Amino acid sequence: MPLTRVGVVGAGLIGSSIGLALRHRGVDVVLRERDPDQLRLALALHAGRPWDGDRVDHAVVAVPPDAVVGELLTLQRSGLAATASDVTSVKAGPVEAAAAAGCDMATFCGGHPVAGRERGGAIAARADLFAGRPWVLTPTDVTGAEAVTAATTLAELCGALPVQISPDRHDTAMAVLSHLPQLISSLLAAEAGELPEAELALVGQGFRDVTRLAGSDPRLWAQILTANRREVASAAARLAQRLALVVADLADADDPAPPLSEVIAAGNAGQARLPDKAGLVPHVWARVGVVVRDRPGELARLFTAVAEWDINIEDVAVEHSRNAPFGRLELAVAAERGDDLLQHLESAGWTAYRRT
Amino acid sequence: MPLTRVGVVGAGLIGSSIGLALRHRGVDVVLRERDPDQLRLALALHAGRPWDGDRVDHAVVAVPPDAVVGELLTLQRSGLAATASDVTSVKAGPVEAAAAAGCDMATFCGGHPVAGRERGGAIAARADLFAGRPWVLTPTDVTGAEAVTAATTLAELCGALPVQISPDRHDTAMAVLSHLPQLISSLLAAEAGELPEAELALVGQGFRDVTRLAGSDPRLWAQILTANRREVASAAARLAQRLALVVADLADADDPAPPLSEVIAAGNAGQARLPDKAGLVPHVWARVGVVVRDRPGELARLFTAVAEWDINIEDVAVEHSRNAPFGRLELAVAAERGDDLLQHLESAGWTAYRRT
Repeated sequence: MPLTRVGVVGAGLIGSSIGLALRHRGVDVVLRERDPDQLRLALALHAGRPWDGDRVDHAVVAVPPDAVVGELLTLQRSGLAATASDVTSVKAGPVEAAAAAGCDMATFCGGHPVAGRERGGAIAARADLFAGRPWVLTPTDVTGAEAVTAATTLAELCGALPVQISPDRHDTAMAVLSHLPQLISSLLAAEAGELPEAELALVGQGFRDVTRLAGSDPRLWAQILTANRREVASAAARLAQRLALVVADLADADDPAPPLSEVIAAGNAGQARLPDKAGLVPHVWARVGVVVRDRPGELARLFTAVAEWDINIEDVAVEHSRNAPFGRLELAVAAERGDDLLQHLESAGWTAYRRT
Repeated sequence: MPLTRVGVVGAGLIGSSIGLALRHRGVDVVLRERDPDQLRLALALHAGRPWDGDRVDHAVVAVPPDAVVGELLTLQRSGLAATASDVTSVKAGPVEAAAAAGCDMATFCGGHPVAGRERGGAIAARADLFAGRPWVLTPTDVTGAEAVTAATTLAELCGALPVQISPDRHDTAMAVLSHLPQLISSLLAAEAGELPEAELALVGQGFRDVTRLAGSDPRLWAQILTANRREVASAAARLAQRLALVVADLADADDPAPPLSEVIAAGNAGQARLPDKAGLVPHVWARVGVVVRDRPGELARLFTAVAEWDINIEDVAVEHSRNAPFGRLELAVAAERGDDLLQHLESAGWTAYRRT
């Protein structure tokens, strides 16, 4: 069954990104969002049009965990959506809560697109947020086939890879793959935050990667961790136990070489088991670096020149040199325009180079 | 004192990258490496020429922690290097060991470029590996001024930011910022590696980031962790304690909402204290987002307008939605010009918003 019109309840990061992805595939998207600022931004991004009593083939409830049951009830009572799904990252408890609250569980299929960013809100939305990412579907015995099909089609239209699994197994896996890492990332960043500034200056890229998740929204994550508390507690307890073993080894000054290489090797093996990033199509852009002076109008001069050469800029990155009167700008353009851009820039007197 | 000729002992990732960076700056680089394959590769990459009895202004010993003292002794006995430094990521113990072994500590300055990759060896070397990264120097009371100056110049020639700190404070900071994160990354990856394949398919980008370090070399990291065992054990014990508190909260089913948001918020705060990448000085820019159409000339129109308002753009970031007709651009400007820019943009008809 094709989805020709989809309703999105909640125009935050996930809802707005779904809207953008669906509209790109020609689907009519109608949006409902309580926060007028979020709604305005989502509409400005063309993530959909306001939902004004339209019937939809499927509605996706893209609100924080604590709000799902309420929004689902409202939606189902309106009778506007043939089927519905959600996007929350905890599944077993919310499914039980929805059933207990009197939701129609035959037309609802639990869903969880495993994609996100540290930044939330429509502001951070991207049409390709789900491209090549898993989109978990957790139908139960009472879920109707129509709801499963619609939720699967939704995931596929967003470019994601639908994966079916039970709510319980989902929650166990997510405790290890997402919820505990979030907690650890936050604890490590908090620990670093207590270092004096002179020590903090020693931070490297490894720490930034490990703590990227620490930028996440506290309210949202408190809800997620609480909703999956049993599984998270169990995964965290296992980690704490393993960590305690390592600490004991390290603290034993008589032991000349504790078996730390085994711990690192076990990590190698675990990492090697992670599935390949499937379905992601790497960009084949040409990247050209340009040296620019740090003064008003310099970027305008550059971009005006590039526009005159009729070259579309796909991406821009700035690299700053501390205290330097110039910076480096990296322009990404279609692969076949790279040489063109480089020649134009050099002829026009810019210092430019091909990035590899 | 300029460095006109530098000796590099050990042509792995760090040594070869130093060679490449120095040669790019016109320095004569001579290499010594026990492994003939590594040496051949480093020479092929033009990281330097074979070290054949040449006297050098400075020599950098770029070998694993356990090999530093031996190589330093050999180097100093040869009398070929005026001063020397190393690159190991643990400092206090190795400095003591070097002194105990009879190394000349007046001409040696401890060093640690905080840069690396999961891949080791000359094959992974890059001339820009150290660009904009901290390069820690740990002189002690007995370190001569000439050695400190030479090591500082070395760091600067490699494009890094020299930071001076005592060996002890270095090791305390690195336990938190590097060694414990490595351990945790490995433990999390190992834990995930025990999941059945169907569950592992749910893995997302967040987990990949947190466990990127898990690909590190077990032998090298066992040496590093062992060399800093006291500090790592202490940081790990603190983390285990905090984790145990969270587990206790989560496991307490009577507590409807454990204070998890505080844990996440503390992580937010810690992350916010990390220095900016470029200059390691936190920028106090105002950030303004603008919605732009994906077509030639649109960026030129925007930057021309901003230049006309006489506002200097400090940084630019583009967020792309692949295949979407719109993108978002984030402009960073001086803090006091943020409101100004926002008003100008809105008056001129752009959809703009303040980034927080």
